[in-house]
Amino acid sequence: MNQAEGPKAPVFDTVAFIGIGLIGASLSLALKRHGLARRTLAMSRRQETLDTAMRLGIVDAVSTDIGEVVKDADLVMICVPVGVCGDVVAAAAPFLKAGAIVSDVGSVKCAVIRDVKPHLPAGVAFVPGHPLAGTEFSGPEAGFAELFDGRWTVLTPLPETPAEAVDKVAAMWRAVGSNVDGMDPEHHDQVLAITSHLPHLIAYTIVGTAADLATDIKQEVIKYSASGFRDFTRIAASDPVMWRDIFLNNREAVLGILQRFTEDLTAMQRAIRRGEGDTLEEHFARTRAIRRGIIDARQA
Amino acid sequence: MNQAEGPKAPVFDTVAFIGIGLIGASLSLALKRHGLARRTLAMSRRQETLDTAMRLGIVDAVSTDIGEVVKDADLVMICVPVGVCGDVVAAAAPFLKAGAIVSDVGSVKCAVIRDVKPHLPAGVAFVPGHPLAGTEFSGPEAGFAELFDGRWTVLTPLPETPAEAVDKVAAMWRAVGSNVDGMDPEHHDQVLAITSHLPHLIAYTIVGTAADLATDIKQEVIKYSASGFRDFTRIAASDPVMWRDIFLNNREAVLGILQRFTEDLTAMQRAIRRGEGDTLEEHFARTRAIRRGIIDARQA
Repeated sequence: MNQAEGPKAPVFDTVAFIGIGLIGASLSLALKRHGLARRTLAMSRRQETLDTAMRLGIVDAVSTDIGEVVKDADLVMICVPVGVCGDVVAAAAPFLKAGAIVSDVGSVKCAVIRDVKPHLPAGVAFVPGHPLAGTEFSGPEAGFAELFDGRWTVLTPLPETPAEAVDKVAAMWRAVGSNVDGMDPEHHDQVLAITSHLPHLIAYTIVGTAADLATDIKQEVIKYSASGFRDFTRIAASDPVMWRDIFLNNREAVLGILQRFTEDLTAMQRAIRRGEGDTLEEHFARTRAIRRGIIDARQA
Repeated sequence: MNQAEGPKAPVFDTVAFIGIGLIGASLSLALKRHGLARRTLAMSRRQETLDTAMRLGIVDAVSTDIGEVVKDADLVMICVPVGVCGDVVAAAAPFLKAGAIVSDVGSVKCAVIRDVKPHLPAGVAFVPGHPLAGTEFSGPEAGFAELFDGRWTVLTPLPETPAEAVDKVAAMWRAVGSNVDGMDPEHHDQVLAITSHLPHLIAYTIVGTAADLATDIKQEVIKYSASGFRDFTRIAASDPVMWRDIFLNNREAVLGILQRFTEDLTAMQRAIRRGEGDTLEEHFARTRAIRRGIIDARQA
């Protein structure tokens, strides 16, 4: 999946988006900007979402009928919460044309593969994918073509996925500005449990802890949020249904890393209670090296 | 402490900074830019820090001798980790001139007041303060005059602090762009435990959890950090000694809110383990309201 493989700018005739939220809308806008699709279509259960997508020029046509949207598609991008990817592909399957590629953008890969695979018709390639990009905003109106610039997209193809399909999807992501990496789905889910799922769980939790405070102190927490809390609230403003599905579908990996985190937090709590300044300082100094690594990796 | 009280732009003849890191350097630069001090001086134990401060034009003169620096000062700003504020004021006390104001910038107020108060000579006013501003960078080279723009500074005066001294310090903070609020020291420490100290503790902990992972997966955590983890690493890059002192000196408030957080995290863990999607979604939706409040308060 390195730069040399595959076309630099593949042109799909028709790309169908099932779900047109932040990620789907951003990808559609990016495909249009870079001339990577002759036309893009969107399906959503909610007419209002489709109206917004049309009004903002995000796609060329829309329908609440999944068959209408996927029947001519060369690429079908599943951009719905991970818990419903299987249902969506089951509904789309009878209408998929031979040679079509199905891909997705879910933050969990094992569960999506497990749910989607049984419904795939013969002659349709599945390229599971995950662009590691996003904001705290949701819906088509939050989409923008530059969302993937300089970020990473991880593809986790199945053993049976044709290499040409993987290369084509990889080339598309690169053409919209993303770096592309390949990974085992299990490994992806482990890494994301640490880099994304646990941070979101913690952010949601601490903001919830603050939300439970008495009204007067809650007002002050909002007023003085710039001192650290604010960064957590941004993360905890992400789409609730999307995140519910992530935790339900990457349960073991999340609970595993959460257990480690809880042990470490208990050790910090103990050091504070016992007044162990050296333990605290040593820990705080050590974490700076990780930040340095992120700056060096140009992901800061 | 509202806008009408006190002079709009007080001019101190001489302002002495004890400690010239991010906060001290930023305030000195802001005082100079706004013409609020005829000259600023800095004391540090480290000659290298003082050399940097001079080289960058942050202050007009420096010394490692605290008496030299404070003897002519109208305002002495204590800008050292909260654990050593008492020692610093004890060392400065014999040299403070009558009518001088001592203030500080510590993130903890009860412990600083407890440590500083016994050493204050008669005729010297103490105005405990805390500008809620900062970055993940440390040292005088990290300072910039705009750091306090639009942020809050909390003052927690003692019952015996003369109103004129409080007004003068408040007016100075306003003149460098900050909003100013008054608060009980106990209440300050409670609010900051939630908005700042707990978020930092959690960020330090999760980054530490990641730092303990095997090298290969740690490299991937760095590479894919943009998906949430990155925001924690920024917080966890703050000065280790400063934060050690904060936790040691706001122990009860931090342990209190940490206990609530841990209970809430355990409830989330349970919901994930039992697959309780409704509980998760409801929690995730609720936290959005807090984010909305922060945006409305223009602190986003």
